[in-house]
Amino acid sequence: MAMSTEPLTAERILVATEEVLRRHGPAKATVVDVARQLGVSHGSVYRHFRTKAALREAVTERWLNRSTDLLRAIASRRDLESAVVLRLWLSELFLAKMAKAGADPELFQTYEVLLRENSRVVEEHIGELVGQLTAIIHIGVERGEFAVPDTPAVAARAVFDATGRFHDPVYAAEWSRPSIRDDFGAVADLLLNGLKR
Amino acid sequence: MAMSTEPLTAERILVATEEVLRRHGPAKATVVDVARQLGVSHGSVYRHFRTKAALREAVTERWLNRSTDLLRAIASRRDLESAVVLRLWLSELFLAKMAKAGADPELFQTYEVLLRENSRVVEEHIGELVGQLTAIIHIGVERGEFAVPDTPAVAARAVFDATGRFHDPVYAAEWSRPSIRDDFGAVADLLLNGLKR
Repeated sequence: MAMSTEPLTAERILVATEEVLRRHGPAKATVVDVARQLGVSHGSVYRHFRTKAALREAVTERWLNRSTDLLRAIASRRDLESAVVLRLWLSELFLAKMAKAGADPELFQTYEVLLRENSRVVEEHIGELVGQLTAIIHIGVERGEFAVPDTPAVAARAVFDATGRFHDPVYAAEWSRPSIRDDFGAVADLLLNGLKR
Repeated sequence: MAMSTEPLTAERILVATEEVLRRHGPAKATVVDVARQLGVSHGSVYRHFRTKAALREAVTERWLNRSTDLLRAIASRRDLESAVVLRLWLSELFLAKMAKAGADPELFQTYEVLLRENSRVVEEHIGELVGQLTAIIHIGVERGEFAVPDTPAVAARAVFDATGRFHDPVYAAEWSRPSIRDDFGAVADLLLNGLKR
């Protein structure tokens, strides 16, 4: 058992949990494994996360939010045309997902299992992303660049749904196809054209 | 064993195979079950389909093609604006998939298994559908209703990809949500606007 003098924070527990999930897989990983990884008692872990389910939910949320900050920074750019911001944002979302799936396929598969058991966290994450898209489209409408038949929020949801092939983990196996970037480009062109005033 | 004097056709074997798949599920259904259902020897079945895999492929193809004829009839309408034809076509595809998933969920799940093992048939089916979409968009461009940045075929693929949420069986569980028709409408509006000249 490795001993540590660092204070036991929620963040350290989440880092260790991801490592344990990577090593044992989502079916076998236990809170005892996480405690052993940190050199603490499992009681110490439970003081931060009251149940195993709460720990799994928190680690899923942390993984999903890893790419959200960069996307939010893109969404808040005011120095570029809205069409450029929207295309950058969609590309960044796709590239971030591809990178996650490609760099560590086992961990990605592990998170696919966790996503299925944490639908509330997934809904919140999608809500955050659609919120960012809504902000981009709202500014575009204000500037007279975009026009939407309904509200910016409805258009944002439509853009998110229409690009699912390029961010929904169910399609991860297709992201290594050589044609996928062209496919993405064609969908992005069509959607941007659809938003143009 | 039920005896029959009808001649044993490929179509009768496929009807019986679907019935056997519905009853036993894709893991347990055998060629012997199909022969028993028809009151013939399994050798007679093998004279039409040389392997169990060939039989499963043919039954999958038949299921996929069941909605293709109606879609082809819509795609060939010349009396309506291209935008109307495209919207009708997308709605019909979505409704046909929803109906299949809703009317007989067990059979739908069975076919989800068969689709995974018959990727060539699935590719051909998608090729047929994207071909119909290409024809609709091609006519729209010729009439001056639509404009596409690349070819009609590229735009057709983009429309197909962008509407995956409303026809890809991986999303079947979401088709019973009350909001799904509005979600579909918003995506269709955006895509049609994107094709407009």
